[in-house]
Amino acid sequence: MNIVLFESQEIVGNTVFLEGRRAQHIVKVLRAKPGDNVRVGCINGKMGCGVIKNSNPRQPYSVVLEISLKQSPEPTPQIDIILALPRPVMFKRILRHATALGIGRLYVVNANRVEKSFWDASVMQESFYRKHLIRGLEQAVDTRLPTISFHKGFKPFVESTLPIMSSGYRNLLLAHPDVQSTLSVIFSNQSGRTLLAVGPEGGWVDYERARMQEAGFSMFSIGPRILDVETAVAALHGMVSLLSSATRN
Amino acid sequence: MNIVLFESQEIVGNTVFLEGRRAQHIVKVLRAKPGDNVRVGCINGKMGCGVIKNSNPRQPYSVVLEISLKQSPEPTPQIDIILALPRPVMFKRILRHATALGIGRLYVVNANRVEKSFWDASVMQESFYRKHLIRGLEQAVDTRLPTISFHKGFKPFVESTLPIMSSGYRNLLLAHPDVQSTLSVIFSNQSGRTLLAVGPEGGWVDYERARMQEAGFSMFSIGPRILDVETAVAALHGMVSLLSSATRN
Repeated sequence: MNIVLFESQEIVGNTVFLEGRRAQHIVKVLRAKPGDNVRVGCINGKMGCGVIKNSNPRQPYSVVLEISLKQSPEPTPQIDIILALPRPVMFKRILRHATALGIGRLYVVNANRVEKSFWDASVMQESFYRKHLIRGLEQAVDTRLPTISFHKGFKPFVESTLPIMSSGYRNLLLAHPDVQSTLSVIFSNQSGRTLLAVGPEGGWVDYERARMQEAGFSMFSIGPRILDVETAVAALHGMVSLLSSATRN
Repeated sequence: MNIVLFESQEIVGNTVFLEGRRAQHIVKVLRAKPGDNVRVGCINGKMGCGVIKNSNPRQPYSVVLEISLKQSPEPTPQIDIILALPRPVMFKRILRHATALGIGRLYVVNANRVEKSFWDASVMQESFYRKHLIRGLEQAVDTRLPTISFHKGFKPFVESTLPIMSSGYRNLLLAHPDVQSTLSVIFSNQSGRTLLAVGPEGGWVDYERARMQEAGFSMFSIGPRILDVETAVAALHGMVSLLSSATRN
């Protein structure tokens, strides 16, 4: 936890009262005492510093912070991701990693090779996914939650949702092992947002790739090695970030 | 498991007898039956195909494969990593991810911000780490195990080990948040191997960075976001791979 985050409704005047995980982090990990400063931020709002006015250093841990929020978060990351829903345990980690790496939006979609049972879980409920997004923000020192949406039908997603949103992107990219093009070759060096599609374990089926290409996506390969989705998301994010930042410089 | 791997000493004539995890994968996940082919490989050797001669489709699962190994693995990846020892649970995942992404060597080193207790565990024993490397090979479809070495003293590592090996690298790179240079700027586009140093949670301390710079490492930043080590390894590997492959094209 590199920043202590709270919701706007937790702010009373200029103080925030913390218990549980966040208070424990301040008291036990940071070993911060009354008078000390900690980095804080309001979710989807500004960052700043919190002065500890009071704390209970034993269980149940509690901390009262007097906060001052003046710093705007970094601009929204230039990358959004389309992700075929992975199994829940991996999905949680991807939510955390992708948020830490920095994404603006995450479109979670169905695909032929997504197991039906993955959709049965409570994955689409905010009470499930929001805490993993917040873990990512706490890691990266950011306050801006990615927007997340779920699309249980692949066909309505490519036919109705993609056409509306795709014009907002400079690059529409789909990673797939069996193609010749590399990312460096197909990446447009003009500035703009990138939408990166990452398939399920086993990959997109032919029909899905064809529909994504019709929707304007370019396919590229990162070589013959097969990566699990979790590793692929982080490695691909690194590649796209590098190309995007080269554009900005 | 995208390839079924075995040790050379498991090969008897041209057959391999499998039980446990690998047999279960072939029978239950691949649903392969006698006469079917599966992709196989000998660890640190060739890849090829295995024909199922016999199997027990119920517990205890077992499979007899007749193998033919003709395909050499891909060349050794162009990237090696220096990694400050992370906590064991994260170390296991990094071993798997880094092997899947493709590395030649992994130097696991001590650093000021590595908790001493991390070295107490059995992490340095082959019986601990080898299975995680193999999981990475099974994911990526490779047979070539990365070489792994442990360096419990940071000082002897930078003073004795680094000078000997560093001449074998074109790029010696150290990721650190508080520097101006970006990876694209400092990366040498001439072909050759890259050695990438990834610090502990909290980063390298000043002394360590100074010593690494003396040893020839260039520092670069990937921006203000703080990543956990696991995410950083995959994202940085992606970036270096992209720059290395651009060199080769």
